[in-house]
Amino acid sequence: MQDNARVRLREDQQLRERASKVIPGGMYGHQSVQGLPASYPQFMARGDGARVWDVDGNEYIDLMCSYGPVLLGHHHPRVEEAVAKQAALADAQNTPSARMVELAETFTSRVEHADWAMFCKNGTDATTTCVSIARAATGRRKVLVAKGAYHGSAPWCTPRIAGVTAEDRVNLIQYRYNDASSAEAAAEEAGDDLAAVMVSPIRHDLGVDLEIPDPDFATRLRRLCDRTGAALILDDVRCGLRLNNGGSWEYLGVQPDLSAWSKAIANGYALGAVLGTDALQEAARAIYVTGSFWFASVPMAASLATLQVVEEEDIVARMLKMGSALRDGMAAQAKAHGLEVCFSGPPQMPFMTFGADQNFAMAGVFSDAAMRGGVWLHPRHNWFVSGAMTEADVEQALQTTDAAFAAVAAAQ
Amino acid sequence: MQDNARVRLREDQQLRERASKVIPGGMYGHQSVQGLPASYPQFMARGDGARVWDVDGNEYIDLMCSYGPVLLGHHHPRVEEAVAKQAALADAQNTPSARMVELAETFTSRVEHADWAMFCKNGTDATTTCVSIARAATGRRKVLVAKGAYHGSAPWCTPRIAGVTAEDRVNLIQYRYNDASSAEAAAEEAGDDLAAVMVSPIRHDLGVDLEIPDPDFATRLRRLCDRTGAALILDDVRCGLRLNNGGSWEYLGVQPDLSAWSKAIANGYALGAVLGTDALQEAARAIYVTGSFWFASVPMAASLATLQVVEEEDIVARMLKMGSALRDGMAAQAKAHGLEVCFSGPPQMPFMTFGADQNFAMAGVFSDAAMRGGVWLHPRHNWFVSGAMTEADVEQALQTTDAAFAAVAAAQ
Repeated sequence: MQDNARVRLREDQQLRERASKVIPGGMYGHQSVQGLPASYPQFMARGDGARVWDVDGNEYIDLMCSYGPVLLGHHHPRVEEAVAKQAALADAQNTPSARMVELAETFTSRVEHADWAMFCKNGTDATTTCVSIARAATGRRKVLVAKGAYHGSAPWCTPRIAGVTAEDRVNLIQYRYNDASSAEAAAEEAGDDLAAVMVSPIRHDLGVDLEIPDPDFATRLRRLCDRTGAALILDDVRCGLRLNNGGSWEYLGVQPDLSAWSKAIANGYALGAVLGTDALQEAARAIYVTGSFWFASVPMAASLATLQVVEEEDIVARMLKMGSALRDGMAAQAKAHGLEVCFSGPPQMPFMTFGADQNFAMAGVFSDAAMRGGVWLHPRHNWFVSGAMTEADVEQALQTTDAAFAAVAAAQ
Repeated sequence: MQDNARVRLREDQQLRERASKVIPGGMYGHQSVQGLPASYPQFMARGDGARVWDVDGNEYIDLMCSYGPVLLGHHHPRVEEAVAKQAALADAQNTPSARMVELAETFTSRVEHADWAMFCKNGTDATTTCVSIARAATGRRKVLVAKGAYHGSAPWCTPRIAGVTAEDRVNLIQYRYNDASSAEAAAEEAGDDLAAVMVSPIRHDLGVDLEIPDPDFATRLRRLCDRTGAALILDDVRCGLRLNNGGSWEYLGVQPDLSAWSKAIANGYALGAVLGTDALQEAARAIYVTGSFWFASVPMAASLATLQVVEEEDIVARMLKMGSALRDGMAAQAKAHGLEVCFSGPPQMPFMTFGADQNFAMAGVFSDAAMRGGVWLHPRHNWFVSGAMTEADVEQALQTTDAAFAAVAAAQ
């Protein structure tokens, strides 16, 4: 079996030293590997399909997919073809191109609740825009958010409070995911000032088991919004296009008023989207949001191709199949090694914790061994399965995870 | 002389009708042509060098440069070569690539005040991050901003108040650009809660003549920050790399503590940057800001190539020369047509108003005629000269502007 540690991180170490001189803390945000086992490289070189390589040439099966953006695999030929064609014409210009209209038409025809679309760059742009639209529509201020949920890194929502003022958060009221009564109580607290209820399609907070929504929870949030006139905002940034071809709550029969999208919608190209209902269109026109690159055509061409491939090749079913095979295989391995594990989340976005773990110590041993064996996953963040995963990839990944479970068992 | 109106906007009209069904208001943000003369197309097809084409095939000399991002011209060969090379490897991955370190090294070596760099996507990301760093560093809340200045479109800074709460703005205090006493009075008002003073390198508010900063104004803002411990934030999003090869206030000898960059730094690829001093590095580490596409390598490769070309080919001098020729030529034309005009701003980012204008009526006639004649400029927003402009482009543009001045004179 390979051991990436043999040749690892020589080039990476040099880049880290250089980075420490010119980037705060050597790296920042979710792509800093501080706090991860030493086997995680800080710098990568390339990707292809379901495989990625670090700067020292070590190869990995990619189970993080750039934390979500890579849906069809790196360098998907149909996406790259659409990108090359559009790039030869134009990207960021004085106005958008026809791609923007085509993409808005595609999204509104695919996503049940969507009558219109706006585009932006970051997931944070999309969630923030949803909140502004809800406030413009209602003339109210308060927004309900689930405790511990991640909705971006602007001052109103970033998980760390350094640099944030009390005023940035004063209009948020927290509820507990999958606890409709707590949301109803929070709405009571907001009184006649409730502008919106924000919710993610599944609970995917960092470091805890994922939770699928109770249908009653979703239905009651919808009813709460209907009763109060607040907007139900679905933050589909992380889940969008991984759970189904439309909005992620369509299978529940619960339609939001607004939804925020980003990550996977352009297979790695920088794009975000806000979708909404006709009732909120006037408010969407009233607010002023924009960005120098929001109208750029190349990511929109990438998104059009991505949406086409997702549908034609039934990518969600493929990810579900591969994710299930991986999960079932790993669950059997854990049992064989006498380890208690909990798999949570949809198989396309799986997460695994160890029952007896304390402070992710076992998860650290496991992920360190997985990385050395050439499987890139994360000890505290959910993983992502791409449409490029093959049965051979799953089989190879399982060879590595078996050794990683053995390492965990040996460390007990 | 060409008249783009002859063949214009057939395709554009069809796209507008489709857009009106799926995009709020048919378009939003700074790229909506609502409020511009009818000759402005809403949809463009392609660009090359200093020329752009709309979806009906009409050709224009581009004096808007995508509202700033296009610095070297559309499809600059050296940038496109760097992009192709990097795109073949990877763009958005699980970590950044070596390009991020190289780019941080390049910025910190070029920009005098910069000891470190962070990267993001939007100008708004960059200005917002600067404010958060200043607040984290000082433990204070208040930020001084010039009345009418544009620093982005997040709730704290967007020029329209729909969807914005009072709390989003409660920690801002306004001063007047080029009026140091008004900034000192605003600082008094903030008392011991002053976190930062934000300022743009020139005054470039929408719809008013641009203003070059009085050196005394800049010096006194610096002294105010030194005295109070607040951070001086230079919003170099729009001007960065158009006025000189480093920060835009270096010629004044005034160094900010933080600077926000975006637009031109990657010649049209989506990238923003925050640069700062060592004294603020700990605060930069303390805050949590990130984005799915912030670490993507292709825009960083584009930026590295852009920075190289800017320096090697002395692009600022070239833009200055072409912008000056354009301005001088237009000023002589206006005089010959008996029209009083005011040119303001650096010649690379010129703006022109008519002395006798009311509500931009004359500017509307002028820009409408310019667009019909194949010169894309804007009646209320400063223009941008790119490094791709040639003397022949200037000469051709002047033929059109002469006719446009004649149209204005005829309409009086």
